[in-house]
Amino acid sequence: MSALARVNGERLWDSLMEMAQIGGTPKGGVSRLALTDEDRRGRDLFVAWCTAAGCSIRVDAMGNIFARRAGRHDHLAPVLTGSHGDSQPAGGKFDGIYGVLAGLEVLRTLNDLGIETDRPIEVVNWTNEEGSRFAPAMIASGVYAGVFDLEYGLSREDKAGVTIGQALQQIGYAGPHPVGGQAVHAAYELHIEQGPILEAQDLTIGVVTGAQGQRWYEVELSGRSAHAGTTPMDHRLDALLGFARVVEAVNQIGLAQGAEGRATVGMANIFPNSRNVVPGRVFFSVEFRHPDEAVLAVQDQQLHAAVARIAEGIGLQASVKQIFQYAPIAFDKECVAVVQAAAEVLGYSHRRMISGAGHDACYLNQVAPTAMIFVPCVEGLSHNEAEAIHLHWSTAGADVLLQAILASSRE
Amino acid sequence: MSALARVNGERLWDSLMEMAQIGGTPKGGVSRLALTDEDRRGRDLFVAWCTAAGCSIRVDAMGNIFARRAGRHDHLAPVLTGSHGDSQPAGGKFDGIYGVLAGLEVLRTLNDLGIETDRPIEVVNWTNEEGSRFAPAMIASGVYAGVFDLEYGLSREDKAGVTIGQALQQIGYAGPHPVGGQAVHAAYELHIEQGPILEAQDLTIGVVTGAQGQRWYEVELSGRSAHAGTTPMDHRLDALLGFARVVEAVNQIGLAQGAEGRATVGMANIFPNSRNVVPGRVFFSVEFRHPDEAVLAVQDQQLHAAVARIAEGIGLQASVKQIFQYAPIAFDKECVAVVQAAAEVLGYSHRRMISGAGHDACYLNQVAPTAMIFVPCVEGLSHNEAEAIHLHWSTAGADVLLQAILASSRE
Repeated sequence: MSALARVNGERLWDSLMEMAQIGGTPKGGVSRLALTDEDRRGRDLFVAWCTAAGCSIRVDAMGNIFARRAGRHDHLAPVLTGSHGDSQPAGGKFDGIYGVLAGLEVLRTLNDLGIETDRPIEVVNWTNEEGSRFAPAMIASGVYAGVFDLEYGLSREDKAGVTIGQALQQIGYAGPHPVGGQAVHAAYELHIEQGPILEAQDLTIGVVTGAQGQRWYEVELSGRSAHAGTTPMDHRLDALLGFARVVEAVNQIGLAQGAEGRATVGMANIFPNSRNVVPGRVFFSVEFRHPDEAVLAVQDQQLHAAVARIAEGIGLQASVKQIFQYAPIAFDKECVAVVQAAAEVLGYSHRRMISGAGHDACYLNQVAPTAMIFVPCVEGLSHNEAEAIHLHWSTAGADVLLQAILASSRE
Repeated sequence: MSALARVNGERLWDSLMEMAQIGGTPKGGVSRLALTDEDRRGRDLFVAWCTAAGCSIRVDAMGNIFARRAGRHDHLAPVLTGSHGDSQPAGGKFDGIYGVLAGLEVLRTLNDLGIETDRPIEVVNWTNEEGSRFAPAMIASGVYAGVFDLEYGLSREDKAGVTIGQALQQIGYAGPHPVGGQAVHAAYELHIEQGPILEAQDLTIGVVTGAQGQRWYEVELSGRSAHAGTTPMDHRLDALLGFARVVEAVNQIGLAQGAEGRATVGMANIFPNSRNVVPGRVFFSVEFRHPDEAVLAVQDQQLHAAVARIAEGIGLQASVKQIFQYAPIAFDKECVAVVQAAAEVLGYSHRRMISGAGHDACYLNQVAPTAMIFVPCVEGLSHNEAEAIHLHWSTAGADVLLQAILASSRE
């Protein structure tokens, strides 16, 4: 086997640390909300680094930045990589920006090694992935993929009523180029896992085969508020008891679906929520996630059945309303195979896995052959200033990205 | 069997309706908070009616009003009856004031029938039973019974910083007489049940043998907040799942103690309470009520054991803190027997029962032989503007009170 090209892991790390100064927080995290002045400074630094690496820069009408390294056959569809540069309000140093700067490091490595690729390589920095300043999340990759139209994307407002279109103008990133409509040969997004699986299993690389589908519900159980002292147990219509039983049932529904099942009650409002009053009403959320739509359909039936059974047992009124649905994503089989082959040839421990969170790659997958690469993060912690990864994980992920891009650029 | 004295039920009802005009609300309830101008007007009306009925009036330093009808042997300890005239902010027309005006109706009936009793009869209107404007509840009967000292009672403040002492001065009810220290031969408090038992069993009279003891707890379960999408079920430390299991356990603990057991989780705060985050912490209340202290001690052990077992099963941290304890009250056996005999001789359906709520009689019981009489209320509803009783219930309760007072006044 011949020697393999590898990135400069220290250079990538230094770039991550330098970028983390922009919007850096006292607790070691980053606050770089989409289209703020911090985001502009981050974009400017990215553009300066890419330009110095010999790239041409293209900014589209949603502010997505594409840094392009020409290929030997530059008319061919490019290999695309990248992620997002915006952060949560109290976010970490790696979520999103790691995939962007690893893409840059791939280009720098190609330059160092004097490698000319057949296809052009583009590194993208997507606008407003987090959805923290402007909802919904992944808005600009969604416009790119045709999920949202441009007018909708530009008209999203922050809390102060500033639209994405206005904010792009203010920071100078309202680009002239159309959003999407570009042929892409293959696309890879490198990201931290944001979950505990890889670290718990002592694995370095996640070969991401898809993303979970989601169904979100609002459930309400209504009984009768009553005096906790004067109301006998068998006269109660205790909505909180019904809620407790639904929480248990949701957990059982999740456990029944194996390692990839997710079932969560995260939010509940109890009425009147007074120590000496039997609760008369509970309003709460339920969400299921699974990579298989058929499983989600079964879980839907199980939820309705469980709520009906539990409510009837106590004498409660119940309503179950699905408020959100997101179909499971299966990434491109060939791109997934390319990622797995890259991990194997580099000798990094790895496993196939599903993304629990949404990513720009989920939308991009609708218009281009796409796959994702995960690296572990410490204790699965993300969306937190304490978010952390190790240098060797960071390097390994960029090595896999480099090999995958090289493989796809030769096709 | 000779003819029995009976009250004038219509006159009592008319008095209730006239009193309900003071602080009357558009929804048919009453807002007559302690020591407000509405309370003053209610007190003035009570005093005027009692004076017209030939009573002497005595007001003590806590504003408790005693209306006295002299006895043949006026040096003997009186038979005492009454309840409270203050209401909840959006209260009903009967809670408290029914027992006060039924006492007045007993005196009026004795006058009508020309009955001279051996012992004097006193009707008391206690200050601030509800605890809505000034905490704690039952403050003035508590001072009367020596549970609180006078200085403490007078210094309680409302939200605006006005003390009970100041408010009594403002409305002219800071009386010159000492609080308590009076010999009482027997005491009866007539009250609406505020619960559903009598109506559900189609009974007219509750012969109240005591009041439940109470233990209140604050419980906290701590796990780890986690992303609902990226965190597998078997990696979760789900505090809400632990909470759900404790709610079920508390319900089982209550059911295991038979008809008189009460076990309630009324309040819970969930953190972070976000739809797509596995809850990391739940803080909640638990309360047990039972007439037997030994049962409460068992429930205490069962709660601690259940929380420890449930927390260990999920890997949660748990704390259980008792924040309040109120010993069970057993009313005077002879007074209870007098009430039961009165219900029997009048032919009213009845049962012995325990009070689920606190009442002035619970404190009075510590310094005088005391019992309570309950009448049903519609659907057990109280502390609500829709609180309702029927005329025949109202009359029956006052008839029982009259017979009990006549019996005790002859002793």
